Amino acid sequence: MAGNTFGQLFKVTTFGESHGGMVGAVVDGCPPGIEISEGEIQVELDRRKPGQSSITSPRKEEDEIKIASGLFEGKTTGTPILLLAYNKDIRPEDYQEMKDLFRPGHADFTYTKKYGFRDWHGSGRASARETLARVAAGAIAKKYLKEKLGIEFISYVEQVGDIKTDMDFNHVIMEQIESNIVRCPDQEIAEEMIKLIEQMQNEGDSIGGVIRAVVKNVPIGLGEPVFDKLSADLAKAMVSINAVKGFEIGSGFDGVKMKGSKHNDQFLQKDGKIALKTNYAGGTLGGISNGDTIYFRVAFKPVSTISKTQETVDTNGNKASLEAAGRHDTCVLPRAVPIVDAMAALVIMDHYLRHKAQNL
Amino acid sequence: MAGNTFGQLFKVTTFGESHGGMVGAVVDGCPPGIEISEGEIQVELDRRKPGQSSITSPRKEEDEIKIASGLFEGKTTGTPILLLAYNKDIRPEDYQEMKDLFRPGHADFTYTKKYGFRDWHGSGRASARETLARVAAGAIAKKYLKEKLGIEFISYVEQVGDIKTDMDFNHVIMEQIESNIVRCPDQEIAEEMIKLIEQMQNEGDSIGGVIRAVVKNVPIGLGEPVFDKLSADLAKAMVSINAVKGFEIGSGFDGVKMKGSKHNDQFLQKDGKIALKTNYAGGTLGGISNGDTIYFRVAFKPVSTISKTQETVDTNGNKASLEAAGRHDTCVLPRAVPIVDAMAALVIMDHYLRHKAQNL
Amino acid sequence: MAGNTFGQLFKVTTFGESHGGMVGAVVDGCPPGIEISEGEIQVELDRRKPGQSSITSPRKEEDEIKIASGLFEGKTTGTPILLLAYNKDIRPEDYQEMKDLFRPGHADFTYTKKYGFRDWHGSGRASARETLARVAAGAIAKKYLKEKLGIEFISYVEQVGDIKTDMDFNHVIMEQIESNIVRCPDQEIAEEMIKLIEQMQNEGDSIGGVIRAVVKNVPIGLGEPVFDKLSADLAKAMVSINAVKGFEIGSGFDGVKMKGSKHNDQFLQKDGKIALKTNYAGGTLGGISNGDTIYFRVAFKPVSTISKTQETVDTNGNKASLEAAGRHDTCVLPRAVPIVDAMAALVIMDHYLRHKAQNL
Amino acid sequence: MAGNTFGQLFKVTTFGESHGGMVGAVVDGCPPGIEISEGEIQVELDRRKPGQSSITSPRKEEDEIKIASGLFEGKTTGTPILLLAYNKDIRPEDYQEMKDLFRPGHADFTYTKKYGFRDWHGSGRASARETLARVAAGAIAKKYLKEKLGIEFISYVEQVGDIKTDMDFNHVIMEQIESNIVRCPDQEIAEEMIKLIEQMQNEGDSIGGVIRAVVKNVPIGLGEPVFDKLSADLAKAMVSINAVKGFEIGSGFDGVKMKGSKHNDQFLQKDGKIALKTNYAGGTLGGISNGDTIYFRVAFKPVSTISKTQETVDTNGNKASLEAAGRHDTCVLPRAVPIVDAMAALVIMDHYLRHKAQNL
Repeated sequence: MAGNTFGQLFKVTTFGESHGGMVGAVVDGCPPGIEISEGEIQVELDRRKPGQSSITSPRKEEDEIKIASGLFEGKTTGTPILLLAYNKDIRPEDYQEMKDLFRPGHADFTYTKKYGFRDWHGSGRASARETLARVAAGAIAKKYLKEKLGIEFISYVEQVGDIKTDMDFNHVIMEQIESNIVRCPDQEIAEEMIKLIEQMQNEGDSIGGVIRAVVKNVPIGLGEPVFDKLSADLAKAMVSINAVKGFEIGSGFDGVKMKGSKHNDQFLQKDGKIALKTNYAGGTLGGISNGDTIYFRVAFKPVSTISKTQETVDTNGNKASLEAAGRHDTCVLPRAVPIVDAMAALVIMDHYLRHKAQNL
Repeated sequence: MAGNTFGQLFKVTTFGESHGGMVGAVVDGCPPGIEISEGEIQVELDRRKPGQSSITSPRKEEDEIKIASGLFEGKTTGTPILLLAYNKDIRPEDYQEMKDLFRPGHADFTYTKKYGFRDWHGSGRASARETLARVAAGAIAKKYLKEKLGIEFISYVEQVGDIKTDMDFNHVIMEQIESNIVRCPDQEIAEEMIKLIEQMQNEGDSIGGVIRAVVKNVPIGLGEPVFDKLSADLAKAMVSINAVKGFEIGSGFDGVKMKGSKHNDQFLQKDGKIALKTNYAGGTLGGISNGDTIYFRVAFKPVSTISKTQETVDTNGNKASLEAAGRHDTCVLPRAVPIVDAMAALVIMDHYLRHKAQNL
Repeated sequence: MAGNTFGQLFKVTTFGESHGGMVGAVVDGCPPGIEISEGEIQVELDRRKPGQSSITSPRKEEDEIKIASGLFEGKTTGTPILLLAYNKDIRPEDYQEMKDLFRPGHADFTYTKKYGFRDWHGSGRASARETLARVAAGAIAKKYLKEKLGIEFISYVEQVGDIKTDMDFNHVIMEQIESNIVRCPDQEIAEEMIKLIEQMQNEGDSIGGVIRAVVKNVPIGLGEPVFDKLSADLAKAMVSINAVKGFEIGSGFDGVKMKGSKHNDQFLQKDGKIALKTNYAGGTLGGISNGDTIYFRVAFKPVSTISKTQETVDTNGNKASLEAAGRHDTCVLPRAVPIVDAMAALVIMDHYLRHKAQNL
Repeated sequence: MAGNTFGQLFKVTTFGESHGGMVGAVVDGCPPGIEISEGEIQVELDRRKPGQSSITSPRKEEDEIKIASGLFEGKTTGTPILLLAYNKDIRPEDYQEMKDLFRPGHADFTYTKKYGFRDWHGSGRASARETLARVAAGAIAKKYLKEKLGIEFISYVEQVGDIKTDMDFNHVIMEQIESNIVRCPDQEIAEEMIKLIEQMQNEGDSIGGVIRAVVKNVPIGLGEPVFDKLSADLAKAMVSINAVKGFEIGSGFDGVKMKGSKHNDQFLQKDGKIALKTNYAGGTLGGISNGDTIYFRVAFKPVSTISKTQETVDTNGNKASLEAAGRHDTCVLPRAVPIVDAMAALVIMDHYLRHKAQNL
């Protein structure tokens, strides 16, 4: 109810603060008998961890994951899986001088007003470090969905600032995405993005961008009518990620200009199966997966922590000036790719179990 | 779990099919002692009902609401409120000849695959008639939020097809919105929108658009960190509305091009209170309301039902041709305005009660 | 959250007051394709309805059930099932003179304090008339469980006041239970029970009793470890029924005197299957069904409404005297039998779907 | 959904296995600003820990609790509280020879059938070690309820085997309970209980008993009508504790023999307030707290683990003989007292927040 749990059947509860002892998650409702290792989860975490390249935060965290319960002889038991990562490179003292200031763009102000005070060692629960736990939990869902249903998650950075690739997402492959540090499959555009991020680093500023998410091989029938549409739950999952300000699925905001006669994806028969001629819907009809590729776009605002001096107020409302300390990302997009994948996996896993409960 | 309930503390469960006997909702968790009448709810429903103007569906439904439980001497009792609207102008026979076809853009295909068969009298639960129940439930939330906290919901049609107003949403007032049948506060643009819709009607086609939602006077502190951010729950609420394909809050998709130094809304003191110089965040920080105006945009794809003949397949996968029967909207935007308001009210009401439970 | 919903996957939300227009339920999460008719539900309701015999309340309600949504051509569609029963024989005026009194044993006092006022036309939501909706929803669960899994619910009145049968519950059959108006399978004891109830009627008093519930053919594996044990959810379901003050499963309160060496049900092989020599556990181990018969006992206090004059206070705390008006049961046990069955069916249905989601 | 979470607003999710690395809980929804220390929680855990006296399990666990998140400068922050206790005295090898046997009275059989296999190192999630996490979480609730509302939890052992005290629970005080190792406030009866337990120890057998729970100063209005009655949630909470087979509140099973004219607790005025002359209801009316003392009884079956040799089958269904290894309690009652208190505190805390959300 306090908002730290995601999912109804595959339930992920995260805990921990950026500058406390540890962050992690409890995964409850995971089917038994799934082989999963710390190593497999680590692969996903390594895509998210700070310090992985010259354009990410220099904070040095190994983000080493430990599976502390719910596993027996390498397999899930059907009981709660505890995932833990100890914080190592913490420097609460970095935040000492900001403790009475409200940092612009941060949640300091709203947390203080909501709870009466705040944990000023880092950003507490508002820190993007919390997403580590999401990626770890999502790795289990991804493993299951891949093995059981062949589902693949292929997200990438489509846009940084005003630099954008127009590659056809249908043909992007994982190797292209992972071949550069910005995670854009279009190598030329990737170069430009990296340059832009470096320029922002030099300016002590930050920049936003867009992640394109692509999910292939989702079986027909996932998602519930009315409120819990697959699209609606994906929207919530994405907008719940730090810094996300927009979500669009299928034709999205551009689709509003189309006529219905064009937007309606036509049914036809293909290889003895019913298929769609186009995919403006983005893989769902009435909120339920239609068997076609699910694709959507997620907008990230520029990072709030910057090195430039900013005007603000202190907790008493007095004018103050903020020099950024701390170690931060100039652009979160490259590290956010596995978070988007993880959240998509959690949504689809949950809906798969829900569909199974009522229908299979 | 089957997705017909919205909210955790102010819980709305909707039921009913477009061509069955009735549609409605049970509202559970409504605080006791709120004065509410059928008339007050009716006002909202009248903004949503078909047949209200030349550019909406000619279906003739009065959408007369009945409060069938949970009220005593005009006040809510704290127990479940049953809201019922009988369907009157139903013509299941209109759908007889489509019963074995999968209508493009509709949920016929996914419902059939998910459940094994479908109620072909209209669109069943996938019909936008279900949103009547949302508007009715939302009217109770709006009443409470207005009286108790002074919160106002001022949504309007900002774009139809490629026709768009650039009025400053901060200054739009309700009278402007309700002064024309398309619900765009910019009277000149409204004219153009109406013309475009009429043109589409003549072509037997349909068109989409964008609703701008504005919520004023939301108190600081609503929304939960991490998964149940106010923004995330608004995203889900909006994308759960039929035909919605996109959501953006604050700077949204455009904000990705901004630098952090500009996007970070600066804190300052104003009238002895802490305020924000700009509002790129859209009224939330870390997913929690910051006291500023909440605003977001919702993209609606063109209506799936059109009068033009379309190619499709039947339930056996054989090629078939579909002539649209039924009575439908050419553009749902004008009728969708109260739905957006209602869903926003349900989100904020729920989060207000959640905040009250843990913090007040 | 306001407590009007039961179940997590097979969710039943009830609504309505005893002296309002109607009572009913929305059933959400019911699997599609189940054949169910109003007639089949009516059979269960007829076992619960008032006026069915000389020892039940003389209120004349037909309790006629209407399935108002969620059904198509006689089968469930997988979408919400709305069940409605209109109240016919209502006499709110009967309660006029009690409206400022707190009736002993009733919820008038707690409702008034909790909500600030109360609906004094009858007992509002505290009325046992609400259980009609449970029985209707339970009838759908029973139908499914019987057809799909062969599960049978065989509850009966084991005790009224101090009159008790010691028939072996393993051999009780439905025909015995339904062969007399008190629903005790032991015909001699039934006679004595009826006499006792008649004596209480004559005295203007009331009496309690115990229902023994027996559930056969529950598959192994239902129930979740830790908090949502099958036994724990049965306990909650039963104690949520009006007037229930106790629950015991298997050996129950008597079992506390046994030694472990006797109480531990021994595993053995029988007809090539693993079975249990005794059944002190009552059909669950670690909260999970073990394949053996589930049995438990439910204690009902005497009915609060009596014809005798009682001392009480009015809403201002002043001494007052209460003459019972209204029409009431002297002993609810005979009418409570189908309620116990229904609640047991709802618990098992919900756990079956939960088990299916995670494990099957 | 998999049953490892208790509560709706004050949500406790437990994790960990008896012979894994750790057990613990995440508490989500705890109000901010509550001072709580590891020491305060430890006090409760010490009442539950093994090895505390000659009549409890000789397993040597310090059950040292660590608050690993959600606290800042000694106060709760409103975000998830992670509670961890490392397992120290684990001996999985003790279970090696039982790994292919189904221990009578244990969940080995049902876990294996439900999940396809089981963690045979100890009893996994079915181990009563899980209740450590409940006690730790309950300690936070108790602290809050005591400070904020003056609520007190005074449970004790009322019966062991057939030895029972008939002390008036209204006058029992904590010092009496804690003055002997069996936690029975009646010192003479306590002696007898201890003797009986020692006799059972010598026989290599085990014995059950009854805990009487008493909760004082609960404010009027907690509990929800219909399904989530305070009594119903207490029933579930209690029956979810390992080895519990029965629950009765107020007059309970004995009350079924009473006449309504006697059982109805009469309202009267006392010290200017409305009070009750008797308390057969046990502190709730219509499932809502009425301001009077809440009391109930909880029946525990004899411990399943005994030292005597028992007949059973192996996982293939072949006859086998089981010699108990492991270290176990002969009678869980003394250690179960704080568990009953903790679960009662969790129920009341959750209902207090729910009441606050909707009504205060």
